[in-house]
Amino acid sequence: MDQIRVGIVGYGNIGRGVLQALNYNEDVELVAVFTRRDPLAIGVPCAVSVERIEQYRGKIDVLLLCGGSATDLPVQAPGYAAMFNTIDSFDTHPHIPEQFAKVDAAARQGDTLAMMSTGWDPGLFSMQRVLFEAALPAGKTYTFWGKGVSQGHSDALRRIPGILDARQYTVPVDKTLEEVRQNRGGAYTARQMHTRHCYVVAEAGADKVAIEQAIRTMPDYFADYDVFIDFIDQATMDREHAGMPHAGNVIRLGVTSDGTNERMEFSLNLDSNPEFTGSVMIAFARALHRMYQKGMRGAVTPLDVPVGLLSKLTAEQLRATRL
Amino acid sequence: MDQIRVGIVGYGNIGRGVLQALNYNEDVELVAVFTRRDPLAIGVPCAVSVERIEQYRGKIDVLLLCGGSATDLPVQAPGYAAMFNTIDSFDTHPHIPEQFAKVDAAARQGDTLAMMSTGWDPGLFSMQRVLFEAALPAGKTYTFWGKGVSQGHSDALRRIPGILDARQYTVPVDKTLEEVRQNRGGAYTARQMHTRHCYVVAEAGADKVAIEQAIRTMPDYFADYDVFIDFIDQATMDREHAGMPHAGNVIRLGVTSDGTNERMEFSLNLDSNPEFTGSVMIAFARALHRMYQKGMRGAVTPLDVPVGLLSKLTAEQLRATRL
Repeated sequence: MDQIRVGIVGYGNIGRGVLQALNYNEDVELVAVFTRRDPLAIGVPCAVSVERIEQYRGKIDVLLLCGGSATDLPVQAPGYAAMFNTIDSFDTHPHIPEQFAKVDAAARQGDTLAMMSTGWDPGLFSMQRVLFEAALPAGKTYTFWGKGVSQGHSDALRRIPGILDARQYTVPVDKTLEEVRQNRGGAYTARQMHTRHCYVVAEAGADKVAIEQAIRTMPDYFADYDVFIDFIDQATMDREHAGMPHAGNVIRLGVTSDGTNERMEFSLNLDSNPEFTGSVMIAFARALHRMYQKGMRGAVTPLDVPVGLLSKLTAEQLRATRL
Repeated sequence: MDQIRVGIVGYGNIGRGVLQALNYNEDVELVAVFTRRDPLAIGVPCAVSVERIEQYRGKIDVLLLCGGSATDLPVQAPGYAAMFNTIDSFDTHPHIPEQFAKVDAAARQGDTLAMMSTGWDPGLFSMQRVLFEAALPAGKTYTFWGKGVSQGHSDALRRIPGILDARQYTVPVDKTLEEVRQNRGGAYTARQMHTRHCYVVAEAGADKVAIEQAIRTMPDYFADYDVFIDFIDQATMDREHAGMPHAGNVIRLGVTSDGTNERMEFSLNLDSNPEFTGSVMIAFARALHRMYQKGMRGAVTPLDVPVGLLSKLTAEQLRATRL
């Protein structure tokens, strides 16, 4: 099989996840991990200063952008798409159209192919939402997240004065999930869908009541939810909340005629959100490489990817053994 | 939106399912239902004798072949692919490569695009199997079917002397399903995965012990399973077993590093297997039409379809609202 040469930009959680996933994808070969830090200090093979990235043009088939959606990807994705085929896991849903336009322009100018918003939401969940709605046009789609760590909500907690460290778990409301699974789903408020569980390490002497108040009233993040807050010490945090598990469900309830109910569900249960995300990005990198070879250029998303292209197997092998 | 003109070949369970699904797909317009029976007798609008089908060349964008895989589709799919873009739900897994080659040759000769094995297994389940394996290359995939009516097994029962009518439900073994969902799945025999529940109407005076024996020893269909047999009368059969519900799960257990478990699951719960299959075929017909317009020719399968093309929405709408 064609070897795919990849580079990784950013050695955070997702970058490390991609590196792990390479162990299980023998057709994908790591050329370099580009970092803003001292390449000798991060302790991985192939670490290279990101300042030297231009020297790798033509030596890398797909560049995996493993930075964050808040500040890294809005700059990196259009920037690198002008030089390389790129994959990212951009996940700020409301900014997707704007980001897509920028990445598309850069990729067309650079004669490259750039895939944005891989990972699982957006990514696999998006594919399922679209597939489910197409299969059952008359119906309603529900997305549940958790139980799992929300990076965004954990960061929001850590910005509150008096908080040293924090971890926020998003937890689906069991009763609601069960109603939906019994084809009795209705319209739900945010509070009816999810609860938010906060583990907080406070500064010594901090006003815990004020901290609780600040959390419970924070708009968008917490105000619309039932919030559970537990103050713990740093040792407990390090011992019990070091992992990054996550989970989630996309469920569609639909009818195909009056009173004939059909239900579709996709669910994930992940010990490690970043490792899984890295593994998914590798699969999309494989598809991207094949789509580029077929002549596609510009920006694309997981919705543009035939699933067969994600596989190590050929179309013929897939038809014979997986169809 | 572009209107898609479709024809239906065969007015059995799936053909009726497609007809139902048209109610929820306003961009798809029925031109004709082609039937081997008297078109005036089947009681549907647009019924036309299948002998007149050639007159519809150029008037139909996609022809939905709704016959069975045993005898209809092996002849119909290559035959009609030479004249029309076609969709079918060919589901005899071991014969897929051979059927694909025939349909591909016919479609290339006719300058058409033919999609085979849509529906849910093969079809949606195939897409999930390939997606899951690509996302988690180190792991194992399990497919469970049921609880639901198996047409093939019901037909097999009806061929046994002394049986007037029969319905067979395939039922997953709960204990095994639970083990897999708890990431403790191993290698299972057919018997450990599914049981087979048979409802049988016997001829008056038939030797029920001989019938039971014939069922339990039938190779492939029943011999490798725990089989439950219940003799009922025709009135009970008609009252309690007229529906065609089905269900199923595709589950993948994988690791992304030592001891880091990730689980993906897709599940269906269907009140009506043929109505759901018809609805899925319509979505694939929409994608097929778009793929044809983009210039694709020959035979394809659901593994070749970007999910975005299944949707009524444009790529831009999907990115803004579904990604």
